[in-house]
Amino acid sequence: MTASPAPQERITAAVLVIGDEILSGRTKDQNIGTIADHLTGLGIDLKEVRVVADEEAAIIDALNALRARYTYVFTTGGIGPTHDDITADAVAKAFGTGIDIHPEARALMQESCDRRGIELTPSRLRMARIPNGGTLVRNSVSVAPGFLIGNVIVMAGVPSIMRVMLADVTQYLKRGTPMLSHTIEVLHPEGAIAELFRSHASAYPDVAMGSYPQNTDGRYWTQLVLRSTDAKRLDEAVTTLKATLAERQLTAH
Amino acid sequence: MTASPAPQERITAAVLVIGDEILSGRTKDQNIGTIADHLTGLGIDLKEVRVVADEEAAIIDALNALRARYTYVFTTGGIGPTHDDITADAVAKAFGTGIDIHPEARALMQESCDRRGIELTPSRLRMARIPNGGTLVRNSVSVAPGFLIGNVIVMAGVPSIMRVMLADVTQYLKRGTPMLSHTIEVLHPEGAIAELFRSHASAYPDVAMGSYPQNTDGRYWTQLVLRSTDAKRLDEAVTTLKATLAERQLTAH
Repeated sequence: MTASPAPQERITAAVLVIGDEILSGRTKDQNIGTIADHLTGLGIDLKEVRVVADEEAAIIDALNALRARYTYVFTTGGIGPTHDDITADAVAKAFGTGIDIHPEARALMQESCDRRGIELTPSRLRMARIPNGGTLVRNSVSVAPGFLIGNVIVMAGVPSIMRVMLADVTQYLKRGTPMLSHTIEVLHPEGAIAELFRSHASAYPDVAMGSYPQNTDGRYWTQLVLRSTDAKRLDEAVTTLKATLAERQLTAH
Repeated sequence: MTASPAPQERITAAVLVIGDEILSGRTKDQNIGTIADHLTGLGIDLKEVRVVADEEAAIIDALNALRARYTYVFTTGGIGPTHDDITADAVAKAFGTGIDIHPEARALMQESCDRRGIELTPSRLRMARIPNGGTLVRNSVSVAPGFLIGNVIVMAGVPSIMRVMLADVTQYLKRGTPMLSHTIEVLHPEGAIAELFRSHASAYPDVAMGSYPQNTDGRYWTQLVLRSTDAKRLDEAVTTLKATLAERQLTAH
């Protein structure tokens, strides 16, 4: 169900990471980078990320701020079977809707429990509770599903599970014009090229230009990244920048 | 200048990561986890993280929301010499103050350029611009300083530089009562212990309890993390939880 966007329509997104363990430092987040890469590939602009604690008010406030502002909001974390997993309930409250056992989710989990020879306890069944109107997001790793409601996609926090949910939900997402990017490596520190790069950036206001300092064995060098959805303009900006660098005898490739 | 907080006073913080490169996925953030660990060690509760683009309005909005809400806000990124480094200016605007070359920052950078035999170009000098009233945060890696203004600490995005700035600014921070934590490893999936753990958590409302699913070679097991600032209560909660697990013949250590 991929829709073709109007030319230049930008599809935007935010990520909301839910979990005390990220804020305490106990767990290092791996999902933000994975989602960022995936969305960039789909031509969706990730515009903001927030990390909040397992606290209902914090989740609801962040979710309502983000879902009003961006095309999509992807949440990670807080959909397991334990008492600290409150994401589904918080999402239901944010949407002002009820939450119940979803028959299809229950069937998937019953089948999985039968196969594993374990009981579908009330705690496990808790993972089949989906806000009313939600569409299931499949989990081929550990079965208990995520869901999509409105413009909000709710996924697990465990990276291997998050990745398969992200893959499954991709079928429902509108795609934008992919952002193209070209990197020029300059063998000089940022300070040596900053003025030249600034004036180049002003000459191409439609091409985003970023500069990233690098350090290899104590030697500073710089990555210049040029980004645009227009291949011709990007190519032009790259070619002229390389010419200017060569003219000033600044080594780049 | 560490102040002794009143008992139970919680010192809180937020992190604001500034950078298109994180949102595009090009760079994977390493600073959030480092800051989270450091603050936990100081007894400061990291309550929220945001990642925003190199856009003035986005930076100012996020900064004003966070600095009103938490004891400290730590920013990373956007303080280099290039045109896309707009953090210092955005911070000055958020505080409604001016921004100028800071004499001490200029002196540090002049000395460094002299030592390296390079020119203190206008671009490099741009890194000595500090909002009025700001205190320098030292950078023993690449000299150009960060700064502290009000309750906001502005640091570089390059992880090696961020770490030395975080170390330097620690002398100015109030510390809270350190959060103590104990992890119990249960050799059963979350679903098998969720009910028991929920009722244990209700019995100790003053001890934070989180459950984190793990998977080793296809076998699911669970880490239960108990956290409190009160060593006696934490010990009590851990001991009784272990006894309950043993009683139900659930293997844990």
